[in-house]
Amino acid sequence: MVIVMTVNASSLDISRVAEYIGEHGARPHISHGEERTIIGVIGYQHTVRREHVATFPGVEKVIPISKPFKLVSREFKKDNTVVSLNGIKFGDNKPVIIAGPCSVESEQQILETAQIVKNSGAHLLRGGAFKPRSSPYSFQGLGKQGLKFLQKAREETGLYIVTEVLEGMHVPLVAEYADVLQIGARNMQNYELLKAVGRINKPVLLKRGMSATMTEFLMSAEYIISEGNSEIILCERGIRTFVEYSRNTLDLNIVPAVKNISHLPIIVDPSHGTGRRDLIEPLSMAALAVGADGLLIEVHPHPEQALSDADQTLNPLEFRRLMHRINYFITSQENYSPENGEIRVTG
Amino acid sequence: MVIVMTVNASSLDISRVAEYIGEHGARPHISHGEERTIIGVIGYQHTVRREHVATFPGVEKVIPISKPFKLVSREFKKDNTVVSLNGIKFGDNKPVIIAGPCSVESEQQILETAQIVKNSGAHLLRGGAFKPRSSPYSFQGLGKQGLKFLQKAREETGLYIVTEVLEGMHVPLVAEYADVLQIGARNMQNYELLKAVGRINKPVLLKRGMSATMTEFLMSAEYIISEGNSEIILCERGIRTFVEYSRNTLDLNIVPAVKNISHLPIIVDPSHGTGRRDLIEPLSMAALAVGADGLLIEVHPHPEQALSDADQTLNPLEFRRLMHRINYFITSQENYSPENGEIRVTG
Amino acid sequence: MVIVMTVNASSLDISRVAEYIGEHGARPHISHGEERTIIGVIGYQHTVRREHVATFPGVEKVIPISKPFKLVSREFKKDNTVVSLNGIKFGDNKPVIIAGPCSVESEQQILETAQIVKNSGAHLLRGGAFKPRSSPYSFQGLGKQGLKFLQKAREETGLYIVTEVLEGMHVPLVAEYADVLQIGARNMQNYELLKAVGRINKPVLLKRGMSATMTEFLMSAEYIISEGNSEIILCERGIRTFVEYSRNTLDLNIVPAVKNISHLPIIVDPSHGTGRRDLIEPLSMAALAVGADGLLIEVHPHPEQALSDADQTLNPLEFRRLMHRINYFITSQENYSPENGEIRVTG
Amino acid sequence: MVIVMTVNASSLDISRVAEYIGEHGARPHISHGEERTIIGVIGYQHTVRREHVATFPGVEKVIPISKPFKLVSREFKKDNTVVSLNGIKFGDNKPVIIAGPCSVESEQQILETAQIVKNSGAHLLRGGAFKPRSSPYSFQGLGKQGLKFLQKAREETGLYIVTEVLEGMHVPLVAEYADVLQIGARNMQNYELLKAVGRINKPVLLKRGMSATMTEFLMSAEYIISEGNSEIILCERGIRTFVEYSRNTLDLNIVPAVKNISHLPIIVDPSHGTGRRDLIEPLSMAALAVGADGLLIEVHPHPEQALSDADQTLNPLEFRRLMHRINYFITSQENYSPENGEIRVTG
Repeated sequence: MVIVMTVNASSLDISRVAEYIGEHGARPHISHGEERTIIGVIGYQHTVRREHVATFPGVEKVIPISKPFKLVSREFKKDNTVVSLNGIKFGDNKPVIIAGPCSVESEQQILETAQIVKNSGAHLLRGGAFKPRSSPYSFQGLGKQGLKFLQKAREETGLYIVTEVLEGMHVPLVAEYADVLQIGARNMQNYELLKAVGRINKPVLLKRGMSATMTEFLMSAEYIISEGNSEIILCERGIRTFVEYSRNTLDLNIVPAVKNISHLPIIVDPSHGTGRRDLIEPLSMAALAVGADGLLIEVHPHPEQALSDADQTLNPLEFRRLMHRINYFITSQENYSPENGEIRVTG
Repeated sequence: MVIVMTVNASSLDISRVAEYIGEHGARPHISHGEERTIIGVIGYQHTVRREHVATFPGVEKVIPISKPFKLVSREFKKDNTVVSLNGIKFGDNKPVIIAGPCSVESEQQILETAQIVKNSGAHLLRGGAFKPRSSPYSFQGLGKQGLKFLQKAREETGLYIVTEVLEGMHVPLVAEYADVLQIGARNMQNYELLKAVGRINKPVLLKRGMSATMTEFLMSAEYIISEGNSEIILCERGIRTFVEYSRNTLDLNIVPAVKNISHLPIIVDPSHGTGRRDLIEPLSMAALAVGADGLLIEVHPHPEQALSDADQTLNPLEFRRLMHRINYFITSQENYSPENGEIRVTG
Repeated sequence: MVIVMTVNASSLDISRVAEYIGEHGARPHISHGEERTIIGVIGYQHTVRREHVATFPGVEKVIPISKPFKLVSREFKKDNTVVSLNGIKFGDNKPVIIAGPCSVESEQQILETAQIVKNSGAHLLRGGAFKPRSSPYSFQGLGKQGLKFLQKAREETGLYIVTEVLEGMHVPLVAEYADVLQIGARNMQNYELLKAVGRINKPVLLKRGMSATMTEFLMSAEYIISEGNSEIILCERGIRTFVEYSRNTLDLNIVPAVKNISHLPIIVDPSHGTGRRDLIEPLSMAALAVGADGLLIEVHPHPEQALSDADQTLNPLEFRRLMHRINYFITSQENYSPENGEIRVTG
Repeated sequence: MVIVMTVNASSLDISRVAEYIGEHGARPHISHGEERTIIGVIGYQHTVRREHVATFPGVEKVIPISKPFKLVSREFKKDNTVVSLNGIKFGDNKPVIIAGPCSVESEQQILETAQIVKNSGAHLLRGGAFKPRSSPYSFQGLGKQGLKFLQKAREETGLYIVTEVLEGMHVPLVAEYADVLQIGARNMQNYELLKAVGRINKPVLLKRGMSATMTEFLMSAEYIISEGNSEIILCERGIRTFVEYSRNTLDLNIVPAVKNISHLPIIVDPSHGTGRRDLIEPLSMAALAVGADGLLIEVHPHPEQALSDADQTLNPLEFRRLMHRINYFITSQENYSPENGEIRVTG
């Protein structure tokens, strides 16, 4: 923590801040500049509270230096966390493709979709049984019945299941049926729910809130990991901006930025990230090129009949074409070799 | 709903859309423009789904016309909803002031604050017992013990209590102690929680999510009202923008905009809306001038020791000065008479 | 400037940064924390470039401490700058009202509007002769002819004239006719234009760019003042956000924030800041309550025939009512006395 | 244009709107819905002004249907515009790489960079002679001298030159030295400048403003094309959002969105779009994968000494590695064949 004093802070102001720091188990380190004084806080910092220091006379601003998250940071754990489901690995270089409808609508619909997903070569099946809808009058999902249909789809195809959980009370039920529990964007800061999924031993797919900073996103992951569950897959799904031609703005900058700072895998949802069927394919390719550990794609046997998200859902043919292109990309990347060492040395 | 066809939509494209509308219990109304065709949907519209129509060939975009909310709209109920607590009225022209600390920290702290709030002439006491903190390592509130301290503050001062509830399971407990249940910004789209507070018969203070549109805000209120509880107080608390000098951007445009479109009262939280102690007073005055039905202000006997939000909390003296100014403003407004009828006629 | 080193920065990394600082005429002040090292830069700082230091190995981030602006800051000049036009004063407590049409459309239109503006008690007349329109096919203003009509309006009413200038080449021409030159939001970072108006000796009304931070806004004012012209009136006119119910989000937080940090006056434009006629009155009142030094309001004799901005323009009756309310507010404020000294002492 | 009447609009309100439409050379098409009436405008629409209709009693909102741009739209010109410079083609499937320093700093610096750019296989050299800096105290570029150094770099390497022009008056001078004239983000709505570059016969690289919508971006291109110059290369360079870990948010959604709606080529600037050296490579790959027609990358022989943008500039080695990876990607894409026809039929 660095404390910037105002230009006309008195020496009494400075010594009061220094005293407060000393009283809270840390050491002040004072730099008298030509214009103003800056005080660094050295030692254990959690007792020295930024908001308190900010209220002292003569303090202009307080700049945090330490990152607020710990267990999710790469400083804490250097190697990538790889989330494995019986051979399918998130965070192990090869992208994982999750696909399926926004909502589970019927047994037939989800079984038919599961076959499409499997035949196209994708790895996991997604589908919502509990749906967070912005209108109370919209289809709210089939609930437990939807979970049973998903279970059946897994039995028929062998595909693992990703499905959303909306509240802490439902976690045991959903965990009984799901292989990966999804926390939706609207619940990214529903801390009671985060704690609840932090106490189970199944992977959690955590979607970024629609106006969450990277720090807030990682802090929400920290809630889960601090309860004991480190099987977390982050998911970028677009942020809210002023842009009018796509439902959200897919923020691919966050993918390498998260990888620098955290050991957790991160995937991308181009369906929500664009909200437009015609943008899903190009943005899927961009997400893979930027280094995402996987994709989450909405596909439906008959998008024009889907009970939710029809306009950002691929039909089977479009999905198959996309998977063809994805597989070509993955294969071509495997053959890529960066410039060799000599060149780097002489560069 | 208005469906805009592409410039080169065929007549088959047009008739397919028209047919779909007819099959779903509504009537198409086709306008052949010089450039493109537009199809209006007349009759019951909820069966005609925007997302489905958007997937038809030849459809460029689908524009919703009806508002998605009903019970909260002024079209449904013309007169203002007045939320009353034994004589204190939200939505009845005279602003209501709610004040108190971010968190209940101890019995002494909340009792001391309650006296300050009462003596300064504010109307309700706020204080968090369950706190949604972005870090799992931050103070999470005193929980049930905090509720008991709030109860004691009410007994001593007679002030009604506003406190936050974080999840559906806690609603009965919090409702036992609180007079008004607060839904925080992070939970504005926690629909399970909204439904839960919709089923009690105590007022709900619903804070706007930090990137919620007005429509989403009102849809969240619709969740509550559709469960039977119409005692809703909306609260603007700042939105997230690129701005760097205040924690959030207080959006006062929404106050008169909500009043045009809805019958619900709306108050303003200048503490979160600015995040800076020095901006609370001017923005409080602006909120009253724009027509807010009340204010929600953070005050603490010793902000420099507060366990949360210290940098956006007034001390007792600052709060008393603000209340003095607020009361002057309210009184001066009561004496205001708009230009008289004659002038309007001749204008 | 404070340089934060990474957790695993080597002592060589640290000494290289220190050396760079020394070589550029400043002194490094090194704090070895438990986790990481922080280096303060003491002395003349403009030679030590933030972007360069950021490229050194082991540097995590560089935090600027000094404000990038000087002449516009309150640290440089403690007292308010008051911009005067023969008795009309911006920045001298009493708000100044500027009103008029978006565009000068005809001699009759501007003369008629000038009478309305004058009769309602407003202080300056605005009107665009050169219009920056987002479409090349929209009305672009009457140009020099428009300036002449404005001049005639001044002759007839005695009102001073505010009008926009779009490019450096036009500055002498516009300055010949205008009393205050307006720089529009789209040109806030048109530095050639800023320099040009910095060289004249007439007041400049500088509108905030639609996504400008406060720092950028003040830096643009710094461009003008650094050329010699300190007669600058800042103008908040709404920022671009995700909000859908108003054209822009009027950011009133910036008014007291600017006043803290700068000596320049700042006014508010509720017409552009809302984009909706029904929001102009409440937001005008809010702007005055927050402490704005004035308002810029669009008024037209017949908004339904205006060639631009019709939907955010008041008609004469609405404007007169607003002025009546504004005058009541100003008078009531003049009678306000804050709590007296004794109470503050005992608080 | 579609006019939505309020629920309680009277038949007089409706007939007044209809009459206005008729008087302005178009035809009203009235749909009486169950809830409200909607009026379509058929025929030539530019005479019927949205803002005027919005001021009529009983009008709730006016929804534009036609796109405001014409000459840049794919409806106007179906085939891609290919901007050619002696064999280098923007918009012809193969991406074009433009690279160079932010600013031209000296003859040696630009000649050295030009060699690096050429040897790495990039196609054009960029470098700023006139620099728009947010501080008046920052390096403002070498001006005409910088243009001469760029000319020398072209003579030595054969690389074409891209450089920025800041105001209309400078256009002839810059056009004398540059092969492509760049309009920077801050000047995207400097209409006088747009008109000036619309009158020359050299390609224009138009950067998106930092909070420009796609419509505004294309309207700015429309300004250029409407003056006669259709050699326009659009450039996405990141938008301003709340995000804190990158200088801007690179919006790759706009690339395929623009290609749907316009025939103009669009390239991507990952240097400004991220503002971080470590994000340039991954976002460059993403931009190519999403279908960009080229990249604009900052490279400098010694970023740690660059006079501007040092922290988003690659050094020669990093740039060479990136070019190696780009070339691998381009080659692998050339060998890609989508799924064949049979599969599509059976899909």
